[in-house]
Amino acid sequence: TRTTIRASKDFSGDRLWLNGIEEDVSASKRLTNCITTARKLRKALEQQNADAVPLSTWGLHICSENNFPTAAGLASSASGYAALVSALGALFELPQTPSELSRVARVGSGSACRSMFGGFVAWQAGVSADGADSLAVQIADREHWPELQALILVVSDQKKAISSTAGMQTTVETSRLFAERVKTVVPQRMVAMQNAIAARDFAAFAEITMRDSNQFHAVCLDTFPPISYMNDTSRAIVGLVHAFNSAVGRVAAAYTYDAGPNAVIYALKDDMRDIVELFTSCFPRPEAVPSEAFYANSFGVFESPNDAGTRITKPEVAELAQTAGKFTAGSVRRIIHTEVGDGP
Amino acid sequence: TRTTIRASKDFSGDRLWLNGIEEDVSASKRLTNCITTARKLRKALEQQNADAVPLSTWGLHICSENNFPTAAGLASSASGYAALVSALGALFELPQTPSELSRVARVGSGSACRSMFGGFVAWQAGVSADGADSLAVQIADREHWPELQALILVVSDQKKAISSTAGMQTTVETSRLFAERVKTVVPQRMVAMQNAIAARDFAAFAEITMRDSNQFHAVCLDTFPPISYMNDTSRAIVGLVHAFNSAVGRVAAAYTYDAGPNAVIYALKDDMRDIVELFTSCFPRPEAVPSEAFYANSFGVFESPNDAGTRITKPEVAELAQTAGKFTAGSVRRIIHTEVGDGP
Repeated sequence: TRTTIRASKDFSGDRLWLNGIEEDVSASKRLTNCITTARKLRKALEQQNADAVPLSTWGLHICSENNFPTAAGLASSASGYAALVSALGALFELPQTPSELSRVARVGSGSACRSMFGGFVAWQAGVSADGADSLAVQIADREHWPELQALILVVSDQKKAISSTAGMQTTVETSRLFAERVKTVVPQRMVAMQNAIAARDFAAFAEITMRDSNQFHAVCLDTFPPISYMNDTSRAIVGLVHAFNSAVGRVAAAYTYDAGPNAVIYALKDDMRDIVELFTSCFPRPEAVPSEAFYANSFGVFESPNDAGTRITKPEVAELAQTAGKFTAGSVRRIIHTEVGDGP
Repeated sequence: TRTTIRASKDFSGDRLWLNGIEEDVSASKRLTNCITTARKLRKALEQQNADAVPLSTWGLHICSENNFPTAAGLASSASGYAALVSALGALFELPQTPSELSRVARVGSGSACRSMFGGFVAWQAGVSADGADSLAVQIADREHWPELQALILVVSDQKKAISSTAGMQTTVETSRLFAERVKTVVPQRMVAMQNAIAARDFAAFAEITMRDSNQFHAVCLDTFPPISYMNDTSRAIVGLVHAFNSAVGRVAAAYTYDAGPNAVIYALKDDMRDIVELFTSCFPRPEAVPSEAFYANSFGVFESPNDAGTRITKPEVAELAQTAGKFTAGSVRRIIHTEVGDGP
């Protein structure tokens, strides 16, 4: 997300353009809460310093653009709110640390607090009743583990007329298993995950990632009415990752799913070529989509994007690609290859 | 399942025909265990009574036929083993009660112990380490609640090359949530369900059924590697049942899923017409399947099977049928309408 903000005493109010289209700022409580909170921090600054420009009283024009597919369940709102709060912090010259600002971003979108940092970030639950200590901390910077990469498989989700409208709040209220997850499982896994990242232990990192993704979706299903984010394609990808790990005889890839059908696949750089080959073989590009748009090859995995799926280096992976068969072209709409980033 | 057994001193060994095709009895440990256990009970009888025909030493020819779709995940093995043990009990004139015989059936297929009775049956977990008191008891006979009916929606499951081979044992070993389910949730629900059946309280019966189905599939997903029995069609049916209950303003239908994608829908007889109409409207019959084969109308819900889906009595259900849209014809392959049965 690229967000720019201009403040002017001539602006009569706050306005926002998202991907070039103006949105009604006052209609979004999450948005106005973020702006109001940042303004209060600026106001405090101005009260301490009589020479400060009274930016807290000026109107704002905010321009925000995502290069991510929108409405694809790819955390574009987390990215957007982190960029917004980061830009407000820069404009207002706020002295708060990124962790302190992550609390402001959290008001916009819970997971936005994590996106206030680059590298590896933990969202601490905190213990205070008002959530004041529920904030994000960086546990390793982006240079810590450069071999770690990610593939985002954008999964086609045929809009079902019958959709689930319930969310996490319903899970908290109705799932009998959710309390157990929060009490005994997540705290242990947070520690184990930080250790795995510190040690750059991919197998441990991968297994915790997969188990926790599965358990998150398990408690969604234990919600009443149940919530299902993953679809048949998502579940086929899960099967393919396990089959790939079995084929190569080690935990070389991991999947994780957020509140949608799209998969994030983690692997080390050296394994990525075969993984991209395998996925592009089993989930073929729809004919209508140019290969550059399907998989941009931005890391130079292939000599040309048209090579995708044609040359697998390991014979056991080539065999898997044969036996796994091909899913309907377009079940995966796009593959985004990325790596650990540097924050907003 | 219809099973007949003949014993003869001229038979050189045990043979079995399943739906007309001979199976290798010795290849199935579950089968030979069942026969051996039943023979031991007969042997004990013969030792007490010198006049008894020595059936325990004779070979058996077993003929078993299912009128259910086979290999559709519709508990045909539970039905088969219950019929087998029931037939062995009759042939051997065993004095054991059905509950005692249910232990023998359990050796063949765990859930077969429940199928030893008609009506409503509970499979008691038992407390002894060797499982000797893990058996089935009838909690109400088939006449207790004649209004209760069931629809079995046989869901088309495109065979994925990447399939899950793990089962319940893996869940016990790897799911962090399974222990919580077994310890605190299931015992409460067993009591609540028996109370709901005793009181013929459909809303309570339905809600426990749905919540427990969801939680079973939740712990399957919390297994590592995860197990997914339900597919996109299964989950669309879940959504449709919740939407139907919302539309009519009461809990009038319930779903439950076993280890496969097929749905069992429970409802009271008076609601069945609209439910069948709704499902046949949203999950249209494939053109190649004759309407009698798709939905046999064995309870005379319609004047003719060709009426299915055309006349809904409640306007709110008719509206739902419109808004819910139509899924691909054949997503549901067949609808079986049934009621509480009388046992093997």
